[in-house]
Amino acid sequence: MSAADLMAVLFSNYLRYDFDAPENKANDHLVFSKGHASPLLYSLYKAAGAIDDAELLSFREFGSRMQGHPTPELPWVDVATGSLGQGLPISVGIALAASRLEGSDLRVWVLCGDSELAEGSMWEAFEHAGYAKLKNLIAVVDVNRLGQRGPTMHEWDTSSLAARAAACGWYVQEIDGHDLEAIDAAYAAALESDKPAAIFARTKKGSGVAAVEDKDGFHGKPLDDPEAAIEELGGNREVSVEVAKPGEARPFEVARAAVERPSYESGESVATRGAYGDALAWLGSIDERVVALDGEVGNSTYAERFAAKHPDRFFEMYIAEQQMVASAVGMQTRGWKPFASSFGAFLSRAYDFVRMGAISAADIKLCGSHVGVSIGPDGPSQMALEDIASLRAVFGSVVLYPSDPNQTVALLDAMREHHGISYMRTTREKTPVIYGAEQSFEIGGSEVVRSSGDDAITLIAAGITLHESLRAADALAEKGIAARVVDLYSVKPVDAETVLAAAKETGALITVEDHWAEGGIGETVAGVLAEAGSSTRLTRLAVTERPGSGPPEALLAAAGIDAAHIVAAAERALDLVGV
Amino acid sequence: MSAADLMAVLFSNYLRYDFDAPENKANDHLVFSKGHASPLLYSLYKAAGAIDDAELLSFREFGSRMQGHPTPELPWVDVATGSLGQGLPISVGIALAASRLEGSDLRVWVLCGDSELAEGSMWEAFEHAGYAKLKNLIAVVDVNRLGQRGPTMHEWDTSSLAARAAACGWYVQEIDGHDLEAIDAAYAAALESDKPAAIFARTKKGSGVAAVEDKDGFHGKPLDDPEAAIEELGGNREVSVEVAKPGEARPFEVARAAVERPSYESGESVATRGAYGDALAWLGSIDERVVALDGEVGNSTYAERFAAKHPDRFFEMYIAEQQMVASAVGMQTRGWKPFASSFGAFLSRAYDFVRMGAISAADIKLCGSHVGVSIGPDGPSQMALEDIASLRAVFGSVVLYPSDPNQTVALLDAMREHHGISYMRTTREKTPVIYGAEQSFEIGGSEVVRSSGDDAITLIAAGITLHESLRAADALAEKGIAARVVDLYSVKPVDAETVLAAAKETGALITVEDHWAEGGIGETVAGVLAEAGSSTRLTRLAVTERPGSGPPEALLAAAGIDAAHIVAAAERALDLVGV
Repeated sequence: MSAADLMAVLFSNYLRYDFDAPENKANDHLVFSKGHASPLLYSLYKAAGAIDDAELLSFREFGSRMQGHPTPELPWVDVATGSLGQGLPISVGIALAASRLEGSDLRVWVLCGDSELAEGSMWEAFEHAGYAKLKNLIAVVDVNRLGQRGPTMHEWDTSSLAARAAACGWYVQEIDGHDLEAIDAAYAAALESDKPAAIFARTKKGSGVAAVEDKDGFHGKPLDDPEAAIEELGGNREVSVEVAKPGEARPFEVARAAVERPSYESGESVATRGAYGDALAWLGSIDERVVALDGEVGNSTYAERFAAKHPDRFFEMYIAEQQMVASAVGMQTRGWKPFASSFGAFLSRAYDFVRMGAISAADIKLCGSHVGVSIGPDGPSQMALEDIASLRAVFGSVVLYPSDPNQTVALLDAMREHHGISYMRTTREKTPVIYGAEQSFEIGGSEVVRSSGDDAITLIAAGITLHESLRAADALAEKGIAARVVDLYSVKPVDAETVLAAAKETGALITVEDHWAEGGIGETVAGVLAEAGSSTRLTRLAVTERPGSGPPEALLAAAGIDAAHIVAAAERALDLVGV
Repeated sequence: MSAADLMAVLFSNYLRYDFDAPENKANDHLVFSKGHASPLLYSLYKAAGAIDDAELLSFREFGSRMQGHPTPELPWVDVATGSLGQGLPISVGIALAASRLEGSDLRVWVLCGDSELAEGSMWEAFEHAGYAKLKNLIAVVDVNRLGQRGPTMHEWDTSSLAARAAACGWYVQEIDGHDLEAIDAAYAAALESDKPAAIFARTKKGSGVAAVEDKDGFHGKPLDDPEAAIEELGGNREVSVEVAKPGEARPFEVARAAVERPSYESGESVATRGAYGDALAWLGSIDERVVALDGEVGNSTYAERFAAKHPDRFFEMYIAEQQMVASAVGMQTRGWKPFASSFGAFLSRAYDFVRMGAISAADIKLCGSHVGVSIGPDGPSQMALEDIASLRAVFGSVVLYPSDPNQTVALLDAMREHHGISYMRTTREKTPVIYGAEQSFEIGGSEVVRSSGDDAITLIAAGITLHESLRAADALAEKGIAARVVDLYSVKPVDAETVLAAAKETGALITVEDHWAEGGIGETVAGVLAEAGSSTRLTRLAVTERPGSGPPEALLAAAGIDAAHIVAAAERALDLVGV
């Protein structure tokens, strides 16, 4: 109710949207960053003729598209909101795609709450939009002074917020959000500006209904007397609005080039992060929808190799991981295929954005470099040791962990073709090439790297520990113990069949991972075994103590995940099963 | 090298710190938010006589305290840094504790980088410090214009940053960071201000060494010719500095009161989130070190019950989860026991802060309410379905998930006594009391809630699904199937013994959880079984499809984790094992 006047003027006079053709690329975007204003959004859809009364009244019912917070189950909703502080950052991504990649003159309208301006992610968005001069972005801030549990920090004093937005390079206006003429004038002025525009509108929560207007304690609660409220608001009316339609989407061209796929020769040693950079640059050439974003570490993730080849489709997001992932989510709403990279450890900063991305059914590809203790001297703050666990626990996600550069190329291409949230974990250190360039790898696959046909034990690993496992298998072979080695490069979805075959055919299993013991490769394998009722004993080697700085090999040894520890674990395991 | 002049003046003229007594509560704090400036920090320690040359030169070696980024393994370091954008928010917590809780006149000095000002978390810190008028906080921003891979967004133009900080209520100065007199004057002015003070100091990366000064491409790299650089900087000198010592710590009193422990009667139905609020208020009375923080949802998490009893020890952090967790980490450096709460889903926003908290060996207690599909109509954006997985994958963490209010009280008290990172997951819906108020529960424990002595199958659950399991056990009993029900309230650490006993004594196991299938209760149990080589088959019931809105019971049913689905799964499992 606080934002109804703001949105009424928008729908009547400014929005350009064909509700019959939400796929029209020339449509404006409207994102409700304050997703809890869903009743308003759905009422607008009703007024625009997109839905009927019956559907509107199914609000929050089981099976209805009228969910408590908007999701893209509705064709006019780009992204799920409801975790505050995300709609504006995502809209920055939409606006970047429309203006910088497509040369479109569409506008991105965002309805923000005042409470959510406490989220730092909103200020990452203000900063980046100002930096990128996104004049196609208009943020309408509904300053209704009341949060869920009481007054906001600034209540109706919009001066601090407006000053900050202005300092970020925005055109700012402070208005009465219930003054229709002031709202209209503010939109007109916003469209004239050559900067992103923020309208700080002072409003009253529950506006128009005396029982709740500007009163605390009614957040998200139904009215006690809805009939009286309807009367007070002017009685039953069948409000409808004719929303202006956009023109034709402007065609744009992106060059595609037949570029040779990167490949690596046996005998070389190449870090998978380097192969990521090579592969990404290649994918940018063969697929014009590929874009890349990086969190100011492109010389470490090697996203800089993409930037060098495709500067027009590379986005430097600086050290703002939330804005980076949000931009990716925004860009994919327009059909782009965004690859976003940083150190794996720092992607944890954007975890809520990935979580919400899954609710949006977003198609984003993430790469986390510098994973595990094997990064060495930089120490634990830079080591991703929880990324497999956290990113497996994202709905529908894919988690890949290559150990070889040729494999990295193949898996990144698979990520390009996959629609959904996928994550690749890359390694800082160089490791030897073990696969041929022609070999295929797929999401959900695994590779038996070594097998004698009569193996006593199976070592299951991926990434850096696969190489440790191969060394361990060599050492075990010298002791007369044949070890199968499985490269479980697709941690999610997992190749249960290969795991179960190993459990059946060999006496014991050992998983080895440069990751905490929780939620990684070990537990993935344990889940497969336990669900099958396998009695083959599993030993899980993983990082279990807080690491420090040091050379990679010292840290792998200290964590108990190097070849020597694998050999020792194998001997203990075989002793237990009496082989 | 860019910040050496800034820190030299600080150590010579302003810092009050007894390096022989880092435990002195009157010491100033010095936090290197730009943790990668560790060589400078360690050199300062050397100059202050805290460490010797040999230790300094062990930088980044295995086993050395001189890690790549500072950690509290060093007694003068409060918190680990190295994930940028965390030092300032944490310092806000330290400053809040010192000024608001202790009435101390110590100062908190923070060295920030300019690159990290791109992180939204820094602006949460600026916002909150301005709001709380933390005049004991001084942020020194080393604006050296160059990030890891090239120029920052603003380079040496500090005007936008300074304007924003000023708008947040800070006293700001912009100076030449190599002008010793200007630095000295800026510190003096900062101490005179009655606001938090930010000094934006324009500096040159690699200052003083022509080969690298203000040049790109040398981030984190050793000098090619260190001898020449030493010569250029004035030759070998044994610089030492006498750092001023602080006075005595000011004593302060916090009232403790003998308040009755909350208890609930059989027959009542109480949401565990409500019991959290009751228990927290009680703990605040019996332990004067307990403080509480909440992310503007205290009327949902029920942290408001603590706020009502102990307003002096309650911190409203507004919708800024990163700043909330950072404040908790800051407060615990001074011996406080912070409990921070929000919806479980929104704690994901602060995941990197929790991760780093573990590297800091921080003692923080987190509570996530509104977990799982059972929250009902608000929809998936509000449902924590990944919190167990992500928080289990934090080094040394404890993850608790009560199903009963009396149990909630006991477990929260255990969290209070536990030193480390602990997390409690609470439920939105009311559930019946199943335990007595006198019953004890411990970290690492579990409870067999039902057992016939000759059980065909075991149901393992916690929280809302424990109640579904009990209903399922009733239904199975009617069919003549005796089911053991295990309350696995301590998900980490897990009571492996009870799980293995169930695997041994019953024909099949079923885990049921209102959480994604990855990294939760099911995989925890799977890990226990696989490591023991148990052949008892495990069926894992968990949320595997994207939920929508609806009544809790409809959503539990749709997710396949309600009593009816448990019964069906039990029958299938027993069929498989031929019981």
